[in-house]
Amino acid sequence: MEKALVKHYEWRGKYEIALRAPLDNKDDLSLAYTPGVALPCLEIEKDPSKSFELTRRWNTVAVITDGTAVLGLGDIGPLAAMPVMEGKAALFKKFGDVDAIPLCLGTKDPDEFVNAVALLEGSFGGINLEDISAPRCFEIEQKLKERLSIPVFHDDQHGTAIVALAAINNTLRLTKKSPDQVKVVVNGAGAAGTAIINLLIKAGFTNIIPCDRAGIIYKGKECLSPNHELLAKKTNHLVVTGGLQDAMVGADIFIGVSGPNCVTKEMVASMNDKSAVFAMANPTPEIMPDIAKSAGAYIVGTGRSDFPNQINNVLAFPGIFRGALDARAKKITDEMNLAAAKAIADYVKDEELSPDYIIPSALDKSVTDAVAAAVSAVCL
Amino acid sequence: MEKALVKHYEWRGKYEIALRAPLDNKDDLSLAYTPGVALPCLEIEKDPSKSFELTRRWNTVAVITDGTAVLGLGDIGPLAAMPVMEGKAALFKKFGDVDAIPLCLGTKDPDEFVNAVALLEGSFGGINLEDISAPRCFEIEQKLKERLSIPVFHDDQHGTAIVALAAINNTLRLTKKSPDQVKVVVNGAGAAGTAIINLLIKAGFTNIIPCDRAGIIYKGKECLSPNHELLAKKTNHLVVTGGLQDAMVGADIFIGVSGPNCVTKEMVASMNDKSAVFAMANPTPEIMPDIAKSAGAYIVGTGRSDFPNQINNVLAFPGIFRGALDARAKKITDEMNLAAAKAIADYVKDEELSPDYIIPSALDKSVTDAVAAAVSAVCL
Repeated sequence: MEKALVKHYEWRGKYEIALRAPLDNKDDLSLAYTPGVALPCLEIEKDPSKSFELTRRWNTVAVITDGTAVLGLGDIGPLAAMPVMEGKAALFKKFGDVDAIPLCLGTKDPDEFVNAVALLEGSFGGINLEDISAPRCFEIEQKLKERLSIPVFHDDQHGTAIVALAAINNTLRLTKKSPDQVKVVVNGAGAAGTAIINLLIKAGFTNIIPCDRAGIIYKGKECLSPNHELLAKKTNHLVVTGGLQDAMVGADIFIGVSGPNCVTKEMVASMNDKSAVFAMANPTPEIMPDIAKSAGAYIVGTGRSDFPNQINNVLAFPGIFRGALDARAKKITDEMNLAAAKAIADYVKDEELSPDYIIPSALDKSVTDAVAAAVSAVCL
Repeated sequence: MEKALVKHYEWRGKYEIALRAPLDNKDDLSLAYTPGVALPCLEIEKDPSKSFELTRRWNTVAVITDGTAVLGLGDIGPLAAMPVMEGKAALFKKFGDVDAIPLCLGTKDPDEFVNAVALLEGSFGGINLEDISAPRCFEIEQKLKERLSIPVFHDDQHGTAIVALAAINNTLRLTKKSPDQVKVVVNGAGAAGTAIINLLIKAGFTNIIPCDRAGIIYKGKECLSPNHELLAKKTNHLVVTGGLQDAMVGADIFIGVSGPNCVTKEMVASMNDKSAVFAMANPTPEIMPDIAKSAGAYIVGTGRSDFPNQINNVLAFPGIFRGALDARAKKITDEMNLAAAKAIADYVKDEELSPDYIIPSALDKSVTDAVAAAVSAVCL
C-alpha cells in the first residue's frame, strides 16, 4: 500500500491532455485556432447538435464528486476525492476509450451541485457521478436526469448493480434456478444496495430481503428513512422481520454492500442448497471466501482482485458510456443497465462457467466492447 | 478557411485524455485505483495542499467561457465557443506544457458563472477566462479573484495587454523614446482596450487617449458607461476631445483593438515622427500594414500571422500560467503581467531589433520559458 503513495508522488497526476490537432507551424495554428476556428464555431451556432461532431463533446464524460462518500473512507471532502476521480478517468480511457475529465465540487448542497453540473452540460457528452453519499445521491441524480439531455449515471449505484446482476444471472445459469424462485438477501441499503434492489426487481426477482445495521427492512417498521420506506414497499412481501441471521435462513443469494465481517459461518450454513455469497465490502468483505466456502457456499465473489469472481464496476461503466456515447443517447435507462448486465454475464461461455468463474476478468477490455454494443442496441 | 472546417470534422475534437499511470495488470490497478488510491486520498484529507502534489491539480488550468464574446463573432453561445476553448487548450499544452480543460458554462448571469467556477476551484491549479463580453468580464474576474486562492486570468484582457506592452516597450527601445514622453492612442475600450490602458499606466505611460466608436473618451463626457468613466479619470489628463482623427494628431503609438479599416492614411500621416501603428483587429486590421507604412508609420504590427510583428496572446498566456503554476502562485498580479511583457520584449536581442522585428515569433516555444521564469520570479 505504501507503494501506491510513492507512485502517486511520482506520477503527479494520473492523466494529462494530449493534442489531436497538430500545432507545428503557422498553417496549423490558422486551422486549429484563429482564423480557421471561426468556421466550426459558426456551424455549431447554426446547429448546436454539431457540437457532437466538431468538438470532443461526443467522447467526453465528466467524472464528478463532492467527496462525501469516497471508497470506504467516507466524507473526506472534494480535494481528497480527486485521486479516485483521476483513477476513474484513467480507467475510462483505458477500457472504454472515453475521455473523462475528473472534477470535484466544493459543496454539500444538492441544489448547488445540480446547478453547477447543469451549467456545464454543454462541455460534456455524459456525466458520471461518483462517491456521493446516500440519500443525497438519489436526489442529485434524479434532478440532473430531469434537467439534462445527456446521460447521467451514478456509478456507485448503477455500475455496482449491473455487475452484481451479471454475477447473479450467471449464478442462476450455473445452479439452474430462476429469478422468481430464489430468495435474495441484500445487506446494506445505501446507494449501491438500493440500486441493486431496484435493478433486481426490473430483472424479475420477486423475493428480496433488504437489511441494514438495524436488521431486516420491512413495511411498517418504525424509524425507517424515506428511502428505506420506499424499499420496504417493493421488497420483502412476506414481511420477514428480525436480524440478518433471520434473513439468511433459506436464502439462495447473499449480496453484501455493507461492512467487514458481518456475516458468520452459521448464517452461510443456514442458506439454501447451492448458495451464492457475494461479499462486496472493500477492502475487507462481509465474510472471507475460504470461510464462506467451508460453511457450504457454492459460489463466492468479492470486490477484491485477489480472490475469484471479482465484482468490479470497471466491467460496466466504460462500456455503458461507450455505448451511450456511440448511440448519442440522451439518458441511461433501466433497459440499458439490464442489457449491460446480460452482456457481461453472457461473455462467460457455457463451457467456461464454473463456481470460480461466473464473471469475466476486470482486465478483459473486450468485455467493454460487448457491453457497449448491447447498450447501444437498446438506446432511446 | 473551408479547410479548417474539414479538419475539425476529421479531428472530432482537438484534445483527448492520455494516461500517466499504467493500467495493464492487477498490480497497476491496485496502485492507481482501489485499494492503493486510498493512501493519497488520506494524505490530502490530512493536508489539502497535497492536492498539488498527488493529483494533476498542480498543472491543470480550466479554460472557461460563457460564449458571449467569441473571437470577432460576438455572442454565439457556449456550445459554439467550444472549438476556440479546445484550440486554446491545445496551445496551452503545446507551448506551456499546461494541461488545460476546455469548459463552457450555460449562463449569462455573472453570479451564476462565478458560483459555478468557485465550486470547481479544487479541481484546478488556475482559471483562464476566455471570450467573455465586457463589462461582465470585469465583474466576473474581480469576484473570482476575491473568492479563489488560485490564479484567475482573463486572457482577452491581460494576455492582449501583456503582448501589446511588449511591442510598445520594444518600440520605445528602437525609437529611443520613453514612456512618460510618448502619446498613446488606444482605440476600442472594451475588455482588451481597458486592460491595455491599465497595464500601460502601471508601466509608467502618462499620456494615453482612449477612444471608442463615439470618439475620444474624456472626463465629464456625457453618457459614459461606468467602465469608461473610470478610464476617463485615469487617462487623457489634458481632456482632449473630438474623434479618433483628433486623437491621432501628434501621437507616437496607436493601439487598435476595435474594428476593420477605421484608421485612415491621413490619421497615420498626422502622427509624430517614428510612429508605431498596432492595428490588432482580427481578421481585418484597423488599417492594412502597407497603407500605414506608405502614410509614414515607422513600425506596424497586427494580430495576423501573415504580416510582420504579430501581436499574439500565445506569446503570453502559456508562460504566465507555466510560471504561476511552477511557483504555485495564489493570484496573477500586475507585477507578473509587467514581468511577462518585459520578458517577451527582452527576448528580441538588440542586434535583432528592427521595425519589422519588434516582437518574437508566436511559434517560438522558448519565449514561454523566458516568460515563465520571469513570472515565477515575481510571484507572491
